[in-house]
Amino acid sequence: MIGVFDSGFGGLTVLRALLAQMPGASFVYAGDTARLPYGSKSRATIARYAADSARFLVDQGAEFLVIACNTASALALDEIRDAVSVPVLGVVEPGAAEAAAHSETHECIVLATSATVESHAYANACSQLGVRAFEKACPLLVPLVEESWTDHPVTRQVAKIYLEEAMAGAERDGLHPDAIVLGCTHYPLLRSLFAELIPPAMRIVDSAESVASRVAANFPATATPPAALQCTFFATDSVDKFRVLGERFLGRPIPSVQLVDLGG
Amino acid sequence: MIGVFDSGFGGLTVLRALLAQMPGASFVYAGDTARLPYGSKSRATIARYAADSARFLVDQGAEFLVIACNTASALALDEIRDAVSVPVLGVVEPGAAEAAAHSETHECIVLATSATVESHAYANACSQLGVRAFEKACPLLVPLVEESWTDHPVTRQVAKIYLEEAMAGAERDGLHPDAIVLGCTHYPLLRSLFAELIPPAMRIVDSAESVASRVAANFPATATPPAALQCTFFATDSVDKFRVLGERFLGRPIPSVQLVDLGG
Repeated sequence: MIGVFDSGFGGLTVLRALLAQMPGASFVYAGDTARLPYGSKSRATIARYAADSARFLVDQGAEFLVIACNTASALALDEIRDAVSVPVLGVVEPGAAEAAAHSETHECIVLATSATVESHAYANACSQLGVRAFEKACPLLVPLVEESWTDHPVTRQVAKIYLEEAMAGAERDGLHPDAIVLGCTHYPLLRSLFAELIPPAMRIVDSAESVASRVAANFPATATPPAALQCTFFATDSVDKFRVLGERFLGRPIPSVQLVDLGG
Repeated sequence: MIGVFDSGFGGLTVLRALLAQMPGASFVYAGDTARLPYGSKSRATIARYAADSARFLVDQGAEFLVIACNTASALALDEIRDAVSVPVLGVVEPGAAEAAAHSETHECIVLATSATVESHAYANACSQLGVRAFEKACPLLVPLVEESWTDHPVTRQVAKIYLEEAMAGAERDGLHPDAIVLGCTHYPLLRSLFAELIPPAMRIVDSAESVASRVAANFPATATPPAALQCTFFATDSVDKFRVLGERFLGRPIPSVQLVDLGG
C-alpha cells in the first residue's frame, strides 16, 4: 500500500498520475485540509504538520510514502524521513530529474508557491543535475484553481503576467530556458493554459507525472488490475468539500472521505 | 487593555480603526498565522482555533476582546464567549448595524469569504435589524491583497466580476441594495477600488470601522493620548512576514512581533 500525503487537494493530481501508471496498487491518501495552505507557512510549522501526517499514513499501513506536496517536499523531506521508517519520496527531485533529462540548454523555469521558491529546493535539485533553474513564485494560481477558474480570462492574464516575469527574470540571469517545471500540484489543472502561453519549443515538466513514473519503477506491474479505485481518503477538515473539490483534481469520483484529527 | 484577534493580518485593519478612534488605549494583538486562512475551514475547526487565541489574549491581560476576523465572528462567537470571562465583540453585528443605520432601501450586499457567506451570519444579523442582505463570496480578493495587487488591473477585473455577480444575484432576489458591506478585514485595502466600481448612490460600510466605533463607545476617551503605538503583537508563524505584510494593513510601522505557539 502506497501512502500519498498533501496539505490539501493538489496531491490528488499526483494520485491521478499514480493511478494511471499503477492501476493495480492500493493507496491511502491524507489531505491536511484543516491546516492548508502550507505554501505561506514557515519551515518549522510545515515540518511539524507533515511529520504528523506521515506517521498517520504509516499507522494506516502505508509501506511507501509519496509526499505529493511541493512545499513539504521542498522544506521538510528530511524531517518526514526522520519521523517514519518506510521509504519516502518527494516531488521535487523527480521533477528536477525530468527537467534535466529533457532540457537541451540545461536551463529551466520553475513555477511554484512562495514557500517552495524561497526554499530554493528546485534550484538546488536542478543544480546537482547540471541544470540552472529560475524559480518564480505564483501565489495567485492556487486560489484561482480552487475558484474553478481554470479556463478563465483572469487566470490567463495572471498566468501570462507570471510567465512574462519569469522569462524576463531568467533572461536577466543570462538563462535560455527550454523547459518549464510545474512545481505545485495545483498547476497540472492549468497545463493546457500554460501550453498556449509558452513558446512552442518549450517543454512542460509536470512534477506529478515525474514522481508517479519514479514510484511505478519501484514496483512490479499487476497482471490484472482491479477496475475499482483502490484508495482510502482521509482529510483533516470538511470531508464534503474534499470530495467535491477533490474530484476535479483526481478526475474521477471519490466514493467516500473519512475525517481525521491530526491535532492543531 | 483591549485584545484583538484575527487568523492573520486582516484584523490589523480593525486595529488601525481602533487606534484612530481610541488613541489612548493599550492593545494586544494575536494573529493565528500558522493556521490561516480560516475562511476555507469548517465551523468546528475555526471554533477550536479561535477559542485557543481568545484564551491566550486574556492570559496576556486583555479585559475586552475584539474578534477582528469575520469568519471567526460569523462561525464561532458563542464558542469564544464560552471560552473566556471577558466581554467579546465580533465584527459581524456592528457591520450589520451600520448597514441598517445607513440603508434607505433596507437592502444591502455583503462581500465576504466563502465560510462567512456559508454561515449566513451577516444575513441573519441584518435580518434582525430589518435589513435584507445578499451575500457574495469573493475568495480571490484575500490572495490578491496579500500579493499586494491592491491597485492592479487583474484585481479590478476580479472585483468587477464579483460585484456584477452580486448585483445580478440581488436583483434576482428582488433586492435594491444601496449599501455594500465589506465583510472581510482584507477588503478595506480595496475600498477605493470598490468605490470606483459601485454606483455613486451606493454606500460602502466597512466592518472594521463599525466595530471600532462600537468599542470606542464603551470606553472613555483619554485626555492626553500617547504618541507611541501601545500594542504588543503576537503571531503563530513567521514574525518577519507578519511585520512586513502587517505594516501594509496597519498603515504604520510594527516595531516587533513575538512568536507564540497555540498548538496545532
